[in-house]
Amino acid sequence: MKLHVPIRLRWSDLDAYGHVNNAEMLRLLEEARIIAFWVNDDTGSTAVGASTAVLDGRPGAATLTLIGRQEIEYLAPIPYLRDPIDVRLWIGKLGGASLDVCYEVWSPAGNGEEKLYARANTTIVLVDAASERPRRINDVERAAWTPYLDAPIVFARR
Amino acid sequence: MKLHVPIRLRWSDLDAYGHVNNAEMLRLLEEARIIAFWVNDDTGSTAVGASTAVLDGRPGAATLTLIGRQEIEYLAPIPYLRDPIDVRLWIGKLGGASLDVCYEVWSPAGNGEEKLYARANTTIVLVDAASERPRRINDVERAAWTPYLDAPIVFARR
Amino acid sequence: MKLHVPIRLRWSDLDAYGHVNNAEMLRLLEEARIIAFWVNDDTGSTAVGASTAVLDGRPGAATLTLIGRQEIEYLAPIPYLRDPIDVRLWIGKLGGASLDVCYEVWSPAGNGEEKLYARANTTIVLVDAASERPRRINDVERAAWTPYLDAPIVFARR
Amino acid sequence: MKLHVPIRLRWSDLDAYGHVNNAEMLRLLEEARIIAFWVNDDTGSTAVGASTAVLDGRPGAATLTLIGRQEIEYLAPIPYLRDPIDVRLWIGKLGGASLDVCYEVWSPAGNGEEKLYARANTTIVLVDAASERPRRINDVERAAWTPYLDAPIVFARR
Repeated sequence: MKLHVPIRLRWSDLDAYGHVNNAEMLRLLEEARIIAFWVNDDTGSTAVGASTAVLDGRPGAATLTLIGRQEIEYLAPIPYLRDPIDVRLWIGKLGGASLDVCYEVWSPAGNGEEKLYARANTTIVLVDAASERPRRINDVERAAWTPYLDAPIVFARR
Repeated sequence: MKLHVPIRLRWSDLDAYGHVNNAEMLRLLEEARIIAFWVNDDTGSTAVGASTAVLDGRPGAATLTLIGRQEIEYLAPIPYLRDPIDVRLWIGKLGGASLDVCYEVWSPAGNGEEKLYARANTTIVLVDAASERPRRINDVERAAWTPYLDAPIVFARR
Repeated sequence: MKLHVPIRLRWSDLDAYGHVNNAEMLRLLEEARIIAFWVNDDTGSTAVGASTAVLDGRPGAATLTLIGRQEIEYLAPIPYLRDPIDVRLWIGKLGGASLDVCYEVWSPAGNGEEKLYARANTTIVLVDAASERPRRINDVERAAWTPYLDAPIVFARR
Repeated sequence: MKLHVPIRLRWSDLDAYGHVNNAEMLRLLEEARIIAFWVNDDTGSTAVGASTAVLDGRPGAATLTLIGRQEIEYLAPIPYLRDPIDVRLWIGKLGGASLDVCYEVWSPAGNGEEKLYARANTTIVLVDAASERPRRINDVERAAWTPYLDAPIVFARR
């Protein structure tokens, strides 16, 4: 099962080439990931919650989500678009204290012909904020995330 | 009359102090302004059009919108919020080739008590892309923008 | 007396118009200000210290520097430049718990004809991190900053 | 042979976790890459030129450098540092129309104990600006880049 997270571009995501910048792309994926996994914002509001959103993301929360690695293939440049792009997100691997989040970045949903802009993978490590050491994925998290476990991305350009 | 433009924060808008960064605030205003004034995105889609949106913002368009000055007062820090903040936007002055865009940045609409985070003013100059010189606001633009002409912001901290 | 802070641009400071973005300009000023006023980085290193640098900027420091207001006039667009731009910085006003930092943003030093790109002013408020309330400028700070007290910017376009 | 490119952090590279943001890291690599490969800035100045810098990066140049893929492993978080980090850069593969740029991101040079923060690889495709199609690496480029050809990164966490 894949989660569809609509992400709005900003004009400032473009660089001087007139396309969404390569580094900025990872910022869009970061936002999709935060919406998908964090249950709340700094105020505790759960406005955009998905069933995968079981981590407390507020300042001072017990768990930090650190990034261990990322890999991304850029398939087509993205221009400034007003309709939100369609980030499809699933879990390629559920480890002991880490998970691999997979993404496909698609053109805005419902706008005719679909275009795949990019494919990416992020390894997230759950870290205990107090000890600063990795901590195991717990049962609540595993139950929430298992339905989104699917085949990992096969990168074509390695 | 004021235009309400909902703008979603990204977690990356925060700086190491855990609040929306002072410079990033102007990026949020930039996006509100683009949504308010540009009729289309790079593909020509007019998905979020307001009646003020009469400028062609696509690459290669005949008019560039350059920024002449900005002024902003920060009234309260903004944490990470999932609901879009409510940017209220109007025109404080319509000149010959320039206009002053005024903004109030409010907490998300419909979430109980309203909070004013910031007030700002941007002077935009319309520039002819070919000659790179200011060009006069035309009749279509003036007609579209006049309903949003209102009292300019009185900055309290000058 | 003015402090000259060389600031290197990044290509990613440009937006799709091919010039340093208007919001990004404030980020460059932020970096100049941090170099000018913070005595150290997160590790305690004081590599780029100026005599004005008497604030501890490390995480957990006793004083936060919040931004109360900003004003900026953009006089000429800045292209991608490899030599660092020359940010000239002084204090336009020393208040009880706040100060006004003034800037002129000039083309790289020693490259022939000088060009003024922008003028700006930032009001900084010193805040006690524990109480989250403004705290008075102390004697050490006042002594360090007074030599850089000079006439505030007269903005031409207000 | 490896090229050492010193890159200054900005405080705004940190995110709310107080470390250089994961996406921002790719922006730092982008800047290192531009300094390494572009012979000039927008004005034609060649201030920071390396022998690898044989591409014209100015607006309107005949060649665009597009990014095909990126891979990065984050080994340790980077705090705010005043001394420039030491980005070591070499070429892991020279193809027909593309090259793999490899990076190691190290702590500031000459500050005692060295620390490796990250390892990364970027695939760059040379694109003819007029036809928007890949174009072959020419003899001048191949001669300039071959001395920096070295073993590609072996990513430990794939």
